[in-house]
Amino acid sequence: MATAKSKKKPSRRKSPTKKPKLDHIHHVAIPVPNIAKALEWYTSRFNCHVEYVDETWALLEFANAKLALVLPTEHPSHFALSRPDAKKFGKLVTHRDGLKSVYLTDAFGNSIEVLEEP
Amino acid sequence: MATAKSKKKPSRRKSPTKKPKLDHIHHVAIPVPNIAKALEWYTSRFNCHVEYVDETWALLEFANAKLALVLPTEHPSHFALSRPDAKKFGKLVTHRDGLKSVYLTDAFGNSIEVLEEP
Repeated sequence: MATAKSKKKPSRRKSPTKKPKLDHIHHVAIPVPNIAKALEWYTSRFNCHVEYVDETWALLEFANAKLALVLPTEHPSHFALSRPDAKKFGKLVTHRDGLKSVYLTDAFGNSIEVLEEP
Repeated sequence: MATAKSKKKPSRRKSPTKKPKLDHIHHVAIPVPNIAKALEWYTSRFNCHVEYVDETWALLEFANAKLALVLPTEHPSHFALSRPDAKKFGKLVTHRDGLKSVYLTDAFGNSIEVLEEP
């Protein structure tokens, strides 16, 4: 009978064939010999917010990702991805800001940090 | 009288003291000796889409920014910001994909590409 309402399941927006969510680039880290001077150089030219600064590194917030200015003696030049399953890449280390991450080196010598973030 | 409705101006979300829009990090470019091998290394480990590839470079799309794998003989290791006023940083060069950009070197030897994008 046309009058009988069929019980439809709630519509699901997630298709089973949906591609996995792309990983997020959390930050790029570049080596500078002096954090204060580098901070002045970058903030005077580009539109960004200073999120953190001490004598060994600074973190600048851009619209979609962050730029870390780092002393080369403290951190390698690298970029960081964030994934909820970071620990599958190795043992996570907890940083002062509470974030957990692991550093990888690709097959060509580049450093990649994988941060544990949803 | 309490019954008289006051004519209010439409509310404005934009405050005149609003900070300038933050610049966008368009991509990070890292040097690799072989594009095909690097593409295999990155795409087998991380969730990203291959946006472009030839023998001299590849562009991988991540959730919020891109990763360029480049031959060091073609491009320096760098990161790229996009701004509508890129030309204020120097003479723009038009690339094969139509994008216009200029390369800067910071006071510490790091390369930065500034792309002309809204």
